[in-house]
Amino acid sequence: MDDVHLLIPGPTPLPPEVRQAMARPMINHRGEEFGRMLAEVLDGLRRIFQTAGTVLPFTASGTGGLEAAVANVLSPGDRVLALVGGSFGERFAAVARGFGAEVVPLEVEWGRAVDPDDVRRALRTHPEVRAVLVTHNETSTGVTHPLWEIAQAVRAGGDALLLVDAVSSLGAVDLQADAWGLDVVVAGSQKALMGPPGAVFLSVSERAWEASRTARAPRWYFSWERARAEISPGRALMPFTPPLPVLYALAVSVPMILAEGLPARFARHRRLGQATREGVAALGLQLLADPRHASDTVTAVRVPEGVDGRQLVRRLRECNVVVAGGQGRLEGRIIRIGHMGAVADADIAAALRALEHVLPALGHPVRPGAVAAAGLEP
Amino acid sequence: MDDVHLLIPGPTPLPPEVRQAMARPMINHRGEEFGRMLAEVLDGLRRIFQTAGTVLPFTASGTGGLEAAVANVLSPGDRVLALVGGSFGERFAAVARGFGAEVVPLEVEWGRAVDPDDVRRALRTHPEVRAVLVTHNETSTGVTHPLWEIAQAVRAGGDALLLVDAVSSLGAVDLQADAWGLDVVVAGSQKALMGPPGAVFLSVSERAWEASRTARAPRWYFSWERARAEISPGRALMPFTPPLPVLYALAVSVPMILAEGLPARFARHRRLGQATREGVAALGLQLLADPRHASDTVTAVRVPEGVDGRQLVRRLRECNVVVAGGQGRLEGRIIRIGHMGAVADADIAAALRALEHVLPALGHPVRPGAVAAAGLEP
Repeated sequence: MDDVHLLIPGPTPLPPEVRQAMARPMINHRGEEFGRMLAEVLDGLRRIFQTAGTVLPFTASGTGGLEAAVANVLSPGDRVLALVGGSFGERFAAVARGFGAEVVPLEVEWGRAVDPDDVRRALRTHPEVRAVLVTHNETSTGVTHPLWEIAQAVRAGGDALLLVDAVSSLGAVDLQADAWGLDVVVAGSQKALMGPPGAVFLSVSERAWEASRTARAPRWYFSWERARAEISPGRALMPFTPPLPVLYALAVSVPMILAEGLPARFARHRRLGQATREGVAALGLQLLADPRHASDTVTAVRVPEGVDGRQLVRRLRECNVVVAGGQGRLEGRIIRIGHMGAVADADIAAALRALEHVLPALGHPVRPGAVAAAGLEP
Repeated sequence: MDDVHLLIPGPTPLPPEVRQAMARPMINHRGEEFGRMLAEVLDGLRRIFQTAGTVLPFTASGTGGLEAAVANVLSPGDRVLALVGGSFGERFAAVARGFGAEVVPLEVEWGRAVDPDDVRRALRTHPEVRAVLVTHNETSTGVTHPLWEIAQAVRAGGDALLLVDAVSSLGAVDLQADAWGLDVVVAGSQKALMGPPGAVFLSVSERAWEASRTARAPRWYFSWERARAEISPGRALMPFTPPLPVLYALAVSVPMILAEGLPARFARHRRLGQATREGVAALGLQLLADPRHASDTVTAVRVPEGVDGRQLVRRLRECNVVVAGGQGRLEGRIIRIGHMGAVADADIAAALRALEHVLPALGHPVRPGAVAAAGLEP
């Protein structure tokens, strides 16, 4: 089991001490010990979100976090601008539509990044837009959209709120909630935060709090107000039973992230992303993503002509390398290699070696030497 | 840590093998191993729900499950009859109200059980009622409402759907989803199912599926349709990233429950409930619940006149016995002793001994000998 290289774009492999923490006995989720633990986790997360505001916890997957973002600030009939360049952009838009928003999609080709000038133009055409939805790192295509530039465009364009899906970026790629003026940022426990899936966290700006007071979309379980009411300095509870093992894990992983330091962590992910892309190129394979906006947490690789994408994933699995296939319209056409959180050089090297081994057997000869080309230990 | 007796009404103590299962490495949540594991968990849960229908999994706390129940079958303006005899009955009603329902409350004194004849009368007065909300086991008062009789009343009263909060009963108290005609049953992972918090499960009747096709309350994350689309015989996935450690735990605990056998398990909880009530009575303390409907998973004990309820909870904690205080209007007025899941005789005996020790110190003398009176090992 431990010899398996888990390289899907989340859940990510966990450091052993994080896994062991989950075996702790249950505790009273309304007691002092829990209150201190969650307060410390949330304080650490505020440093990772780079916000002085509150970070709210919810028991849910990332998509629940997206729902918690839209349901607290929108009212039925509100116009939203959705920046869509992949499955997760589509999902964010669909959740907003599900809660009654009129969605104006700004579509970009899957694999391309959103152009901030297009955002500017769209906001000029639709000045009534109440919120802009953006996926910081589009996990389905391996593209990191230029969030800072997009935020500048949104801020310059009027009063629209900026809601950010940072599920597969936060903790691996720079994101400054306060300094960049991001109104809501959604992160999941199971990606670069090195925890298991089961919790989501939202940072909320003062403007977003203001908007939540008059928003009429229904929310109960995902109510920000209920979540905030349980949080005070040094003692944080949750309004409904918290996912204890997930929080036990984050109580270990969040301090590990802060000990590594955000700049070092971002640099490490840049290096891993770069190595993956160089190794893939050395194999003669094509990336899906525009190289100027290639993600440092997940690399989408085009499946070569004549090779069956699903079979490629299966064969890599037989070599103990677990990667993800494509989603939606990209199913069978790409594989996705995750490299966030606790992924190490050796994992990427194993993936490159496995590709080098498997592709010729599937009728697609490749140049040898990808591991060395990637600058990884042979 | 392991010497602590965790006797809150959920999260409940976990068997060591269940805890250890959570330390397993992460796996691909779209791979074969996960698909098999979740299918087995859901098959086991169908036996515990006593249903031949589908059981749907969601990443959430129990309250998220209540939202998943109402949001899939109701439309704004629908009339619902809410049976309310405690905090969780109030919560179920509030969630329905939050999603646009017009709630007709049928209130009973906290500590009393709902009278099925009152349900019959209410449905005659309000024949337009679309759904009846009932809390099987009211965790805040230690009352188990007579679910079978209530279900008979609802079935005889027309076409209303019956939505059941079974978060703190399923797996400890008999509940037959199909035979009793329960349309939606909500259970949480963290109570009698002997898992950690973080997942909820819903059984859904054919009538409820039918209702969901035309219901207009918004739901996206909690959509039944999306959840069901991922489930097929022998392979079950979840539409959004599943809470892996919680499911690892249930993959161990659900077979343990089935190995014990439901009749034996219900009998064991009856015996534990009975022993707790007898021990408490022997101490000269009063129960909150009507004895004919006292819960076998949680016992609510009135705090004696002159004793500070919060201080009592704290002093018990110092004796390594963790119980819960009262909620809502019962805060400070009761303590609640949970006895569900993996709670053993020794835990109940420890609680009785701690009460015997602590109450006199708080100025309330008690008769000795509660453990023996409860029929527990001294």
